[in-house]
Order: sequence, then structure tokens, then C-alpha cells
Amino acid sequence: MTGTILAGKSGSRATLTISYPERRNALTILMWQELAAQVRALSRDGGMRCVVIRGATAEAFSAGADISEFGTARSTYEQVVRFHEEYVGGCLGAIAACPTPVVAAIQGACFGGGLGIAAACDIRIAAEGARFGAPVGRMGFPLALGETEALFRLVGPSVTAELLIEGRLFDARTACEKGLVSRVVEEDDFERAVAATVENICASGILAARSHKRQIQRLMRDATAVTSAERMEVYSFAESEEYQHGVAAFLAKTDRQR
Amino acid sequence: MTGTILAGKSGSRATLTISYPERRNALTILMWQELAAQVRALSRDGGMRCVVIRGATAEAFSAGADISEFGTARSTYEQVVRFHEEYVGGCLGAIAACPTPVVAAIQGACFGGGLGIAAACDIRIAAEGARFGAPVGRMGFPLALGETEALFRLVGPSVTAELLIEGRLFDARTACEKGLVSRVVEEDDFERAVAATVENICASGILAARSHKRQIQRLMRDATAVTSAERMEVYSFAESEEYQHGVAAFLAKTDRQR
Amino acid sequence: MTGTILAGKSGSRATLTISYPERRNALTILMWQELAAQVRALSRDGGMRCVVIRGATAEAFSAGADISEFGTARSTYEQVVRFHEEYVGGCLGAIAACPTPVVAAIQGACFGGGLGIAAACDIRIAAEGARFGAPVGRMGFPLALGETEALFRLVGPSVTAELLIEGRLFDARTACEKGLVSRVVEEDDFERAVAATVENICASGILAARSHKRQIQRLMRDATAVTSAERMEVYSFAESEEYQHGVAAFLAKTDRQR
Repeated sequence: MTGTILAGKSGSRATLTISYPERRNALTILMWQELAAQVRALSRDGGMRCVVIRGATAEAFSAGADISEFGTARSTYEQVVRFHEEYVGGCLGAIAACPTPVVAAIQGACFGGGLGIAAACDIRIAAEGARFGAPVGRMGFPLALGETEALFRLVGPSVTAELLIEGRLFDARTACEKGLVSRVVEEDDFERAVAATVENICASGILAARSHKRQIQRLMRDATAVTSAERMEVYSFAESEEYQHGVAAFLAKTDRQR
Repeated sequence: MTGTILAGKSGSRATLTISYPERRNALTILMWQELAAQVRALSRDGGMRCVVIRGATAEAFSAGADISEFGTARSTYEQVVRFHEEYVGGCLGAIAACPTPVVAAIQGACFGGGLGIAAACDIRIAAEGARFGAPVGRMGFPLALGETEALFRLVGPSVTAELLIEGRLFDARTACEKGLVSRVVEEDDFERAVAATVENICASGILAARSHKRQIQRLMRDATAVTSAERMEVYSFAESEEYQHGVAAFLAKTDRQR
Repeated sequence: MTGTILAGKSGSRATLTISYPERRNALTILMWQELAAQVRALSRDGGMRCVVIRGATAEAFSAGADISEFGTARSTYEQVVRFHEEYVGGCLGAIAACPTPVVAAIQGACFGGGLGIAAACDIRIAAEGARFGAPVGRMGFPLALGETEALFRLVGPSVTAELLIEGRLFDARTACEKGLVSRVVEEDDFERAVAATVENICASGILAARSHKRQIQRLMRDATAVTSAERMEVYSFAESEEYQHGVAAFLAKTDRQR
């Protein structure tokens, strides 16, 4: 068996499943490419409201990049550049650029490239048994700068140093205390909690949800203060049917309550 | 009854109270303008040491912008721009620009525009029963980018995503764990804790306190590294009487202890 | 007795000890200079893997700058500028620029300039009894902007405001919750925990560890997005013997496990 990305879609929700159970859902280059392609396809669907990325088994979200490809795909400088810029970077960039909110639903091992995927998502839900880390230094190489940057934007310098310089592994509670995941739920409650999160995201107006994602991505990517022109662009929501309907519905409800 | 901002001043301390009990201290446009005007007036008082902003009732700091004004003041693009840039943005900008430290003393609901005010303050104290959120997406519109930016500078991308994309509400303990408030105190201890915070702020030299606020605002507003010229400007404290007296008093005390 | 910096070196590890027990390891100007010189000397040692900075006694990491020098070295504007730019700034800059990861091992008082040193390190381990603060405002002066900036990059605006505007002191647990230290350990476990942290850092490839430190420092110092050229420079690890050996060893181990 080789690994793959399973894609499921139900109306305005989609789930992408990292599946390579024999290797704790490690990611081969083909899987990085397939995950990127699936995210890009969902990005073109204007009715999509929420994408979930998860592992195929409770054992792992993803144990990281598939080690067995090191010899053939990560030996030379040229291979390393292509691996990080094209395969990993292409996939993480697709998640960040996806106009739809993306949730990482994390059980078990979330290491290296798996942690990179989780960090690229907008919301991270972890089951109690989840474990996090990126101890790549012990294999003799640093994390690529683009991947370090994404971690840094999420958790700041001190937690990034613990992960990379110390090679620390965090259990789910510690990861939550350190801001690496949004919340921790019991294993038995995991599926229900992920479903509830999806419903909460879908309860937003679709334009509002997309604007919120775009705003946060802008602030993460570019540390300079927002400009007046950028603020004006966001106000265009006022001309949408979604807004006009929302306000009308709200006022009607308020009137009825009087 | 319509809402208002109550202003009290006692020597070098002032309290501004958001008062509209019938609507959980929601903010009308007149109240946004009045709060801004009061903050600007206190900003001109060179002897002011600490401003507290709070709600008139234990039920709410502020439930947010007054919904009943949607139809008349937030229907069109032009109205929306004016609402956020002039009324809300003007008020939040006045708090951030106030040379005096501003404390948000938060009991009960702290939602939407109320959360924006709390985020613009320098220190946030919450009572146990306080609740936080900005689930505006459910009404069909996004938070304005300037308001998202202020939240983002305070709590980072992941917590901002929980608040806006998921529309989550946080109780006081969770808000504290996530860095949204500085500390949580029991309801019975709330008034005493706010008073103690004010005293601690007033225990600083007035120039030192103002320099600290200005420094932090500079770092929030502008992510670029501070320059040598900016550092030099701060050192001008050395020429103040406050500094010379402080050092002399300290040395005298140290001498007596020998 | 006057204070000094004790330096110990054992192979690829070094420990720098702030020693002035009579004054809770307060830092005189000579000690700031000596600490900077020691860090710079270790920075030139290409085989160095980890530097620990600590206090000489369990009572204090460092109580801050030595107050008794105020009268002679911090009275005038020129003295203040030299003190912060040359002595304090020179030392903190040397720690940040040290290519080797630096660990702050913190017992007891960690105040003012001591907190500045801890914040300049990459990893902070605190014993249960450690206490943190920088209540300089009460002496009538603000923290220097460069030192505020370092705190701000570490813990953000709200915690910086608590430390400087309120003059709060944090116990070790609170400091950890607020992201000021990486972890807290029991007093009896302190030496063992510091040693384990050093071993974990030294378990990284030396080039990988140095790259991780450099990457994080770049992201702290400069908030702009990393460029393609910066990413390419990091990939040069692929041409190192360390990387080639690491990958070969890993693949050999993986083969044996099949």
C-alpha cells in the first residue's frame, strides 16, 4: 500500500484525510502534491464553507514527511529546495490561500510536516492523546525558514525555540497552554467536537467567514499596519445581499421581540 | 431612557462608565462619540495618571454596538464606512492615543464593540462571570479590518480566528488563558482588585507611566524594529525632575539602610 | 567583595554565572561588560553547542542593575545613554547575536536588568520559587525602549503593560502561563532539568541548532515576511557533512528495522 489523500465533500463542507496507516499517515511527495491539488480544487468552489484536514487513523494526524524518500528526493541541495519550496511550501501555501476556513482535526502524532500542515490551518482541535513536535535537528538539519516562519507567527519565539532548538514534544494540554492548538477535547468527544466546530464556522455568513480568514491571513503575512485602502475594501461587505438580508432579518427579529 | 457615558474624576484618576442598562450597556453612536470626547478631554489633562473604563451594571461591560441603529446608521456602504472609521475607529483610536494608561474593568458581557474597547485599553481586569466574544459573522458581516487588527495585535492569529471564524464565546478563565484579559478575579473582589490596579499604576512616576504606554503603543502600531533615534528620545527622561528626585530618594534610602 | 561573572566550559557546553551574592547577583557596569565579553568569546568558538546563564545563588538569577551605581553612572542624560546603549544593550545584543543557543536557568529574583538578560536568551527554565518583574516606574523612570522591545517581542503588549505600567511581579507559575518562561520545575529538580535541557539542545546537529537560533532571531528582529533569498540561504544545510551523515544514518537505521 502507498499513501493517499482521501477527499469527501458534503454540500458546503469537505474533509481531506491524510491516509498512510502503515506509516502513521506520513506524507510522501505525491501526497503533498495531492493535498495541495485537493485544497486548490476546493478553493475554486464558491459555495464551500469549511474544509477539515485530518488523519485516517486515531494513531496520527501525520507523523511528518515520509522518511524513506530522503535518499531519492532530499539528498542534494537542488532536491532539498524543490522539496520545501515546491512540495511542502506549495501545499502549505495552498491551505493559507484557501478562501474557506480550514480546520485541523488532530488525533495522535502531529510531527514535522504534519505540524506544518496543522499550523497552516485556521483552527486546530486536538484530542487528548495528540502529541506535537518537530525534532528535525536530531536528524541533522534545520526546519526550512518558511516553515519556521509559520510556526513563529502562530506561537512566537519562545515556543518555536522549544520545538526546534530543544526538540521538545508537547502533549495536547501543553500544546494548548502554549497556543499551538485552539482547544483539547477527550478522545470520545473528538468527532462530536470537530462536527460542532464545523457547524459553528458554517453558521457565519459565507462572505463574512471568508473576509475573516482573508483579514487574519493578511495580518499574519504582513506585519505592517493595515492601510486605509485595505480597510475600505473590507467595508464592501455592506453592499452584499448577505449583509442586507442579515440586517433585515435581525431587525425583524428585534421588532418581534418588542 | 437613552444610553450615556458617565464621567467621574478624582484628582489624578478618572472613571468613564458605559451606561445603558436597558440594553446591557450597548453603545449608540452618540455614546461612541461621547466616550471618544471624554477620553480626549482626559488626554489633555497633564496631571491625569489612570483612566478606568467600565460598564454601569455588573451585567455587562458592554454588549456591543446598539443593534437598533442598524437600519438607520449601518445600511449603506457610506454609513458603514462612517460608522467604523469615524465613530468606532475614532473612539478606539482616542483610547490608544490617550497618554495616560487606560484600564478596562470588565464584568458580564463584553461583546463586539465592547470587546473592541477592552482590547484598546492597556490592562484588562475581568470578574469571574465576564464573557467575551464577537460573533458578528452570524449576522452576516465581518469585523472591520481595523478592529480585527487590534484583536490580532493583542492575541495573535489563532485566538482571533476562534473569535471571528468560529464565533466562539469565552468565559473569563478561558479569556485569561488565551491572553485576552490580564487577570480574573472573583466577583466579590472585583471593586477592590480594580482599585488596587489603579493604585499600582499611580505608584509609577507619571512620566515613566506615560513613556511605558507610548512605547508599547509604538511597538503595537508599527512592527518594524525601533530605531536609534526612537531610543534616544526615550532617554530624555534622564533630564526630568521626576527622575532626578527618584534617584536621589532611592540613594538616600539605600544610604540609610547601610 | 565586588561582583563578577564566573565562566565554566566543558567541551561544547559553557556556563556563565552572575555572581554578586551580597546584592542578590545585581549587575554592576563591570559585570555587564564582563558578561558581554564572555558571551562574545564563546560566540567565536565554532564547536560550542550550548551556553547557560544563571545566578550564583538560589536566591537570585539577578536582582537587576546595581542600584549603588546610579549616582555615578546614571545621573546625566549622557550617562543614561551610555549605560543602556553600551553596557546593557551591548550585553543583551551579544546574547541575541551569539550563534549558539543560550539558556537562562532562573532561581529566585529575576528583576529589571536580570529579566532583560533572561528575555534575551532563547530558552528560559524557572524554578518554582523564581519571581519576575521590572517595576522601574516606581523609581521614576521608564524601561529603555530597546529593553521594552525585547520584552514585547517575547510576550506581547498586554503582559508588557502588566510588567511596566502596573509594575506587577509574577511568580514562576504565572510567568509560565504568560509565556515569560518556557517551563517551571520544582526546586529539587532544577539542576537536573537544566542539565536535561542542555542535553536536548546538544542532541541537535550543531549546524541545525545554529540555523534554528538564527532563523528565530531573524523573525524577532525583523517583522517583514522572509524573502526567497533568505529561504535559499537556509537550504545550504543540504550541502553540509552533518546533513549527509544524518540522512545516511537515518536511512541505515530504517533499513535495519525492516
